Amino acid sequence: MKSFSIEEICNKIKGELIGYTTTAITGPEQIEYATSEQITFIGSKKFAKLWDTSKACAVIVNDDIDLLPTENRAVIKVKNADIAMSDVLDMYMPVPPVFEEIIHTTAVIHPTANIGEGVRIGAGCYVGKDVVLGKNVTLYPNVTILDSVSIGNNTTIWSGTVIRERCIVGSYCIIHPNATIGADGFGFRPSPDGKGLVKITHIGNVVIGNGVEIGSSTCIDRGKFSATEIGDGCKLDNLVQIGHNSRMGKCCIMAGSSGLAGSVTLGNGVMVGGGACISDHVTVGNGVQVGGCSGVISNVEDGKKVLGLPAVDARDALKQWVALRKLANES
Amino acid sequence: MKSFSIEEICNKIKGELIGYTTTAITGPEQIEYATSEQITFIGSKKFAKLWDTSKACAVIVNDDIDLLPTENRAVIKVKNADIAMSDVLDMYMPVPPVFEEIIHTTAVIHPTANIGEGVRIGAGCYVGKDVVLGKNVTLYPNVTILDSVSIGNNTTIWSGTVIRERCIVGSYCIIHPNATIGADGFGFRPSPDGKGLVKITHIGNVVIGNGVEIGSSTCIDRGKFSATEIGDGCKLDNLVQIGHNSRMGKCCIMAGSSGLAGSVTLGNGVMVGGGACISDHVTVGNGVQVGGCSGVISNVEDGKKVLGLPAVDARDALKQWVALRKLANES
Amino acid sequence: MKSFSIEEICNKIKGELIGYTTTAITGPEQIEYATSEQITFIGSKKFAKLWDTSKACAVIVNDDIDLLPTENRAVIKVKNADIAMSDVLDMYMPVPPVFEEIIHTTAVIHPTANIGEGVRIGAGCYVGKDVVLGKNVTLYPNVTILDSVSIGNNTTIWSGTVIRERCIVGSYCIIHPNATIGADGFGFRPSPDGKGLVKITHIGNVVIGNGVEIGSSTCIDRGKFSATEIGDGCKLDNLVQIGHNSRMGKCCIMAGSSGLAGSVTLGNGVMVGGGACISDHVTVGNGVQVGGCSGVISNVEDGKKVLGLPAVDARDALKQWVALRKLANES
Repeated sequence: MKSFSIEEICNKIKGELIGYTTTAITGPEQIEYATSEQITFIGSKKFAKLWDTSKACAVIVNDDIDLLPTENRAVIKVKNADIAMSDVLDMYMPVPPVFEEIIHTTAVIHPTANIGEGVRIGAGCYVGKDVVLGKNVTLYPNVTILDSVSIGNNTTIWSGTVIRERCIVGSYCIIHPNATIGADGFGFRPSPDGKGLVKITHIGNVVIGNGVEIGSSTCIDRGKFSATEIGDGCKLDNLVQIGHNSRMGKCCIMAGSSGLAGSVTLGNGVMVGGGACISDHVTVGNGVQVGGCSGVISNVEDGKKVLGLPAVDARDALKQWVALRKLANES
Repeated sequence: MKSFSIEEICNKIKGELIGYTTTAITGPEQIEYATSEQITFIGSKKFAKLWDTSKACAVIVNDDIDLLPTENRAVIKVKNADIAMSDVLDMYMPVPPVFEEIIHTTAVIHPTANIGEGVRIGAGCYVGKDVVLGKNVTLYPNVTILDSVSIGNNTTIWSGTVIRERCIVGSYCIIHPNATIGADGFGFRPSPDGKGLVKITHIGNVVIGNGVEIGSSTCIDRGKFSATEIGDGCKLDNLVQIGHNSRMGKCCIMAGSSGLAGSVTLGNGVMVGGGACISDHVTVGNGVQVGGCSGVISNVEDGKKVLGLPAVDARDALKQWVALRKLANES
Repeated sequence: MKSFSIEEICNKIKGELIGYTTTAITGPEQIEYATSEQITFIGSKKFAKLWDTSKACAVIVNDDIDLLPTENRAVIKVKNADIAMSDVLDMYMPVPPVFEEIIHTTAVIHPTANIGEGVRIGAGCYVGKDVVLGKNVTLYPNVTILDSVSIGNNTTIWSGTVIRERCIVGSYCIIHPNATIGADGFGFRPSPDGKGLVKITHIGNVVIGNGVEIGSSTCIDRGKFSATEIGDGCKLDNLVQIGHNSRMGKCCIMAGSSGLAGSVTLGNGVMVGGGACISDHVTVGNGVQVGGCSGVISNVEDGKKVLGLPAVDARDALKQWVALRKLANES
């Protein structure tokens, strides 16, 4: 188990040390759960009073919060305790799973695959024909990468994920377990006899930018033509559904169990709350925030916050909720 | 990369060629994204004006839309541009992932399994005791088929999918990656001491008809008794949840992230929008349309359109939304 | 196929046999679907009339329902037909998938892993460094268990499931196919240049109690610090999302496609309906019932029933629905 001294932590986060502790600090923890060998943090005045009863041997606080050290318990003041805490988490990052063999003997790798320097491939992985894996790509055990996929440098793919043929993944991406990239889009047409549905061939792919994170069991379908696109820096949580030919700009955030139907366009910096759905062919502008559990059925202009089912301007949604509550009480 | 001449495409879709292009056409594309070597399509008059500024060397249009060819840019008139485009997509279908070995040496296949002619089994697959795979079944790498499962002719199962024991899948089905067929249903009873829950044994299975498509990470639970049933021609999108003992008729469509709780009955041709949920023991009639994000908590008669939470007749739901908006504005 | 006599069944469920059948009973079935070799059950008076037209050779009924046997068709009276039926289901439990080799030769098991007595490991499984598998743990084919995971006695893990490093799973748990335990939580902070997002390191894990059941494609993220906790006896259905640092008490039930955002606290015995979402940092008291498709955005006191978007007291939600329906009809 790693441990650091209070000075080491203070130096890392460039804080001001007040008081002192000789304790070898074994990790960061929320203030309610911290033990006497752990460091905690307070980012808001309303939690300041918890310091007195906390067992933590040290606390990182915003510099506008007045906290006093006690015996062998130190205070570190910083500009932003949340960001400092994130740096402390990095210090304590545990070792990731080991690769006993850099490329495991049970992995099946097509002879035409182009494997970059420093690539690690776990047991039971499949890497198809003409796949390109950039430098330092990591495939944990039981990943499936089908033909002609290209994956950029330093991307990590966790177990159970499937990337179908011809999809392109950028550099410094993380794809969590059991995600599916590049399945056929959901497109059918009436059969000639009018009695059923005929599958529409999907000849497109999925193109994922750099620095993208994709959650567990998230599904991104390939385009009918051309690509379903996920821009640089986008972060998709677990169980997210991205329909065929949707296009996301840069640094969009989609929370758990949210979804885009087909051909949705998101601008840059869009935030979609948990469980929210956006209907097909809708365009959502830059910086839009979609509230959790909302259903967006029409275009949204840049910078708006929308909410509700169907989603409207968030202030209007709140007004509607208040009005409905009042109406129900009166009746 | 495949390419076709304008005549080849025109013949395939039985259209009327107006003007001409000598370009070797490398693929179909949406009008906004098409390059000068691609063909595009216009299915609605409101998009007709995009032809002038498009780079596409050819366009397929509905025969009631008047478009003129220009120099080396052709027009093909057809009855239904959407359907024609679907035929053109078929022409350009890329090669699917290859099987270097028809049945990969790393696949584990129980000696009692009955493997039809033309079956292909990828690396890392598991095929259990007494499994029956019909002719031309394709299992991509890392599929798991447990004991006594039966799969019909020409069905394709993508990587990561798990089919549990005794389930039955029809012919000409496609099951996308990481789907789960036949997990235990979600059923418990109070434990005798009243302090917890005891699992109810699920002795049923899942029976999937012919021509069914099942999306990525979609979950279909086995019946408590008898079967959870998915009728011929049903199409289920990604992340769909089907509870134990639900029964779907023929040609139902369930969009992404929708779900049926336990013992739901759907008639034929039911369409369920994205994110919609249907409560347990509800019966939904033939041809019903359930709007996206709706919650259906009571039976729905044949042919109805329902919407909202709780779902009501779609016209009533729209009226409710209008009335609520008005009420909020007035207050 | 198993079969039992009417006496064997009657003894098992300690019922009162009225009439008799000589039929060798091949299984239990719902009354509408039962054949003449099956036994059915009636737990409510409103279904009593179905007995006359049913083909079943026997019926289990609550002792306050008056049913008469007919020729070679018996009635068994019990206190609670639902619970008796569950006992009958246990009698007919089919054999689970076989393990031809107790620990399959294609499984990759790190030499430091500690494998208990009676453990069975299927083809293509991966078991990492320092993993501990308790007695009688079963891993079906293609399961991935990463380093330092600990799994208690008698736990069963189905194919495709991934458990990431350092997570802890209790005894007598069942984890269904393609579940993901311990992926990184969804946490980011603005990058120093203000142009993107930086991942927050997640040093915590997931701790799952005893007797827990986790559905297919359900995702439980690891804590940022310390653990995401699932208490003893909790039952999670398919496609459930549990965000980082959420903590569930004992015997909670979460139905399909529901979710907890980050740092949600559930008390004991909470029931969350299908598709419902609970916002981050919300606390939900003991015994609370959250209706299907609801969105809970604020704390809920012990014993309450809440419903709607946003969720309010269930009676108030019903009043709102009635008021809104009335308002729409009047306008």
